[in-house]
Amino acid sequence: MNKPIGVIDSGVGGLTVVHELMRQLPKEQLIYLGDTLRCPYGPRSADEIRTFTWEMVDFLLTKNIKMLVIACNTATAYTLGELQEKLSIPVVGVILPGARAAIKSTKNNHVGIIGTEGTIRSNAYTQALQTIKSDIVTYPLACPTFVPMVEKGILSGQLAERTVEEALLPLKINNEMDTLILGCTHYPLLKDVIQESIGSHVTLISSSEETARETSAILEMNQLLNDVEEQFSHQFYTTGDVEAFTSLTKRIFDSSVDNLKTVSIEKAII
Amino acid sequence: MNKPIGVIDSGVGGLTVVHELMRQLPKEQLIYLGDTLRCPYGPRSADEIRTFTWEMVDFLLTKNIKMLVIACNTATAYTLGELQEKLSIPVVGVILPGARAAIKSTKNNHVGIIGTEGTIRSNAYTQALQTIKSDIVTYPLACPTFVPMVEKGILSGQLAERTVEEALLPLKINNEMDTLILGCTHYPLLKDVIQESIGSHVTLISSSEETARETSAILEMNQLLNDVEEQFSHQFYTTGDVEAFTSLTKRIFDSSVDNLKTVSIEKAII
Repeated sequence: MNKPIGVIDSGVGGLTVVHELMRQLPKEQLIYLGDTLRCPYGPRSADEIRTFTWEMVDFLLTKNIKMLVIACNTATAYTLGELQEKLSIPVVGVILPGARAAIKSTKNNHVGIIGTEGTIRSNAYTQALQTIKSDIVTYPLACPTFVPMVEKGILSGQLAERTVEEALLPLKINNEMDTLILGCTHYPLLKDVIQESIGSHVTLISSSEETARETSAILEMNQLLNDVEEQFSHQFYTTGDVEAFTSLTKRIFDSSVDNLKTVSIEKAII
Repeated sequence: MNKPIGVIDSGVGGLTVVHELMRQLPKEQLIYLGDTLRCPYGPRSADEIRTFTWEMVDFLLTKNIKMLVIACNTATAYTLGELQEKLSIPVVGVILPGARAAIKSTKNNHVGIIGTEGTIRSNAYTQALQTIKSDIVTYPLACPTFVPMVEKGILSGQLAERTVEEALLPLKINNEMDTLILGCTHYPLLKDVIQESIGSHVTLISSSEETARETSAILEMNQLLNDVEEQFSHQFYTTGDVEAFTSLTKRIFDSSVDNLKTVSIEKAII
């Protein structure tokens, strides 16, 4: 089924999902839309998040996508259910794949979650975890400073380290967590800094890697895997400044993505 | 949807999948059938494997299962396609979850696979891996001595170490694999011995853990998760000797499974 997979995010964080999709599913064409203009979604109301997400989805539906990946935890928390119900294509969000990976990883059932205010306020991770396994104890923590920092391209160095260290302090006191979910697709870009701060005894779960893997499973189950090797271009759209987006994209992908073929980045009018 | 999940295997190997299903999906009731009498399937013909597998499936279908897990790599290699086509319930095998986990894990695209002769001869793992990612290089190796050893309950000690060491020798020469798929559900019972022999630089992928995780995803996507906490008994059936099966089951689960509730083990006449 040689149609593209659509990926949406509030900004550039979803590019970590794209990065993993390219690595784990190199035969699949991707169309990405980042709502950079209105990023971050984290502090917004549920209604606003819903409206903005539907605008992005409507834009991608015009591109004939075969599957939709909501590569944004905040948007997933507030819209996954209704998108799955109303769209005729498979829809995957980033929360459940991360939750399932955490359940597989944890040995003592103590799981930390970091995310935006919106994601943490929604309680979506705790709910997802406990729906599957009641005795999971969660330690949710909002880290509102991370997304703006990443969107500015600050991914390492002293400022990043200090910001992460300060934000994670509450997680270092009085808990036995052995697993920490990076419940925001921006956070894998800070993975090394977060791991250094939280300690090597805690396993970090990247919702981006896990979502790419479940996308692979869903495509296979729905017989939607692209079985023909062919030339294609991934397409990237942003609602914001194309130049700023291009520069961040370059920084995220650097030279480690060997199949970042021709890529068009366009201004999306939604 | 408070119906049980059916799990089949050629013998006791599938109990490693059951162990993970209990851990990752503690609210789900399981019905297991091990074809101990006719184990191992590895050296058998494709026709025999198909006939035996369908006999097991027909037995479990009378138990009103909501999903089928083929917890046997050999049976998966030869019957997954037709089972998925002919049954009206979701069917998951152990090969694709392991393949997807290996693709996620490998950094250099060099992946080893160990399994029974049947599984290795079927080429199912290499096919699954390369369908998704063409440039994966595989090193498949049949280890026919492992299953009979595990079925006898030999999981550690000198004999196990020597057997594993000898079997894995071909994998230690001339290859750069960074990931090794335990392509048989019996093998996780030898995980420590295998890891010790192959070295810590190689990541072991347990098809059992990965299959349990995908079972969780499939239940959720099909809205089949059991949402009510209730008392239930897991049920275990064997085609062979009940006493021998019980003793092996005890050894596999020991006291680490906290929810091995009332369990009935019966002789299955199929």
